[in-house]
Amino acid sequence: MNDATIDVRVSAEQLRIQIETILRAWGMPVGHGAVTAERMVEADLRGIDAHGIVMLPLYERLLKDGHLIIDPEVKIVRETPVTGVIDGGGGLGHYPSTLAMNLAVVKCSKAGLAVITVRNSQHYGAAGVYAVRAADHGFIGVSTSAVYRPSLVPTFAAEPRFGTNPIAFAAPTKRNQPFVLDMATSAVAIGKLKLAAFAGEPIPEGWVVDDDGQPVTDSMEALALRRMVPLGGGRESGGHKGYGLAAMVEILSSVLSGAMACPVRDPDGGPLGAQGGHDVGHFFMAIDPAAFREPGDFEDDLDAMIDALRATRPTDPAQPVLVAGDPEHTELERRNKEGIILAGTLVADVKRMASDCDAEFLLTC
Amino acid sequence: MNDATIDVRVSAEQLRIQIETILRAWGMPVGHGAVTAERMVEADLRGIDAHGIVMLPLYERLLKDGHLIIDPEVKIVRETPVTGVIDGGGGLGHYPSTLAMNLAVVKCSKAGLAVITVRNSQHYGAAGVYAVRAADHGFIGVSTSAVYRPSLVPTFAAEPRFGTNPIAFAAPTKRNQPFVLDMATSAVAIGKLKLAAFAGEPIPEGWVVDDDGQPVTDSMEALALRRMVPLGGGRESGGHKGYGLAAMVEILSSVLSGAMACPVRDPDGGPLGAQGGHDVGHFFMAIDPAAFREPGDFEDDLDAMIDALRATRPTDPAQPVLVAGDPEHTELERRNKEGIILAGTLVADVKRMASDCDAEFLLTC
Repeated sequence: MNDATIDVRVSAEQLRIQIETILRAWGMPVGHGAVTAERMVEADLRGIDAHGIVMLPLYERLLKDGHLIIDPEVKIVRETPVTGVIDGGGGLGHYPSTLAMNLAVVKCSKAGLAVITVRNSQHYGAAGVYAVRAADHGFIGVSTSAVYRPSLVPTFAAEPRFGTNPIAFAAPTKRNQPFVLDMATSAVAIGKLKLAAFAGEPIPEGWVVDDDGQPVTDSMEALALRRMVPLGGGRESGGHKGYGLAAMVEILSSVLSGAMACPVRDPDGGPLGAQGGHDVGHFFMAIDPAAFREPGDFEDDLDAMIDALRATRPTDPAQPVLVAGDPEHTELERRNKEGIILAGTLVADVKRMASDCDAEFLLTC
Repeated sequence: MNDATIDVRVSAEQLRIQIETILRAWGMPVGHGAVTAERMVEADLRGIDAHGIVMLPLYERLLKDGHLIIDPEVKIVRETPVTGVIDGGGGLGHYPSTLAMNLAVVKCSKAGLAVITVRNSQHYGAAGVYAVRAADHGFIGVSTSAVYRPSLVPTFAAEPRFGTNPIAFAAPTKRNQPFVLDMATSAVAIGKLKLAAFAGEPIPEGWVVDDDGQPVTDSMEALALRRMVPLGGGRESGGHKGYGLAAMVEILSSVLSGAMACPVRDPDGGPLGAQGGHDVGHFFMAIDPAAFREPGDFEDDLDAMIDALRATRPTDPAQPVLVAGDPEHTELERRNKEGIILAGTLVADVKRMASDCDAEFLLTC
């Protein structure tokens, strides 16, 4: 039984197995499928809904259109004690990115510092989940990614040139939850357009612009246009900084790894990277605080800073001052207990996808 | 002859010698004075006027108030092949920061990657000049700094908690000028308030807020309040990202180096760091593209990306799309040729400072 108008509550484990079952049915190797499903469910658990199972239909389309290698050869192509480059083989980004951050953590454990880049990859889900992996090992973690299709409009420009190029930064603590900044370099993530369009509500000025740089407030039109304003808005309010950060992310993710930079790629008809993929790049860094300070001192001082931030006088007593990662952690605790609620339309689409590839459908109530 | 109402045009060399002469007269050791003057003039040459000679009166006040050690013991207190920590000894930041980026470049030349932090320091001038040093050596350079006095108001907060915590990122090219992002994590730098106040003009909403989080548009009131809105503005337009970036900068600069984090410091009466300084921290990183790609490939691809950005269709044909670092480079070329114009009031103050410390006054036309 599945009614597309009724939302469905599922457990994280149920969701993980469903995603893995479909990925495996598409032909994804077992290790890749397990890791990819884990990363996607982590996004859903942390409330980063735009990067969880909701991406599965896009991955299906990329696969059908020949833009995704389902059984890629993922390999380390360059390596030093503190650096490395992984070739993703034209497959989804979750698996090579997980290997990359794992490799960064191993190298960082020995050297105190490591940077690993990934090229010839695709969408890697939520940037934050990779940074959090480093923090779970007691390290500062950084993760950035390019995007294959441009949607971010540079300052003074009439057309998009970058994706919403995310930056994630996580740092370990003792008493508090880790600090986790996970942000698009656009004013808002594209997921917010989808939510507004789904609800039939207008969007504020400063999120999306048209060809002439004029604000678009109709959410359906905005979603169709996908011309995102950089973080900061217009030139007067600092939008050139958001544009600059997006370019920085592109340099770290694409140019440093040897992937194709978004401004030189034709997303509709231009040359694809090796093996038909879009040749998207990512960047991962791990820093061991114990290379800089006595063990534990970093975490103590970060806890004290977080405590001071939480104790800041708010303008509205009902809305205390938060620290980056708070909303995601609240969702993580809640969803681990109560499960994850999926829109009925999404569940119906998952059922259709499962049927199309002869995979078992598991998201029944 | 010096009339405070008349602007004065000076050469970079004239300015450098004037600054160095005053710093030396205050008691700064010769090596420190030369390096500090160089970094300050670099800011003035690049058009980053708020971090050049205009800072000299503040440094004089910090010195008189006992918050600055003029002849600090600067030393490397911790070191591995790819990391290091420098103690600034409670002096100005330019000298230990220059040593830090130099050390990062040396280590990066051998290992492909290096991070050096600085603690027990003070204001270091323009973040960008350190990042550019790395790019001049063919490396990606990153520089961030904390600030001793809070001015950035976190999302939902009624009081400031961080400085305008800058991020600078530079990357080397072949044909183009290097990519140089140099940005405060507030919507605008405090220097823009000073310019508006000086001109007697109002400022736009979204730059500064009052106790209740309401926008302040009177530039004099704004300059007195110094409650800067984070990059992105309010919560709806992404201001929590600017606040998150400011916190990230504080973690890298202060918590990782062992300096005092701004939210736990009482700038007016609390405990000062060692030797009376404010114990400000900085972060420096160098990454060698040749550790990740064949030599020259990174620079070629970055040039191609920059070319594509410049070729982007603009909304206004009279205002082409720029790349981070363009305005500063235009100023650098112009001021190297034509000299640097200083406000008559500033020159009068320099004359007064020179007289007070028995240094020669050199900024005559």
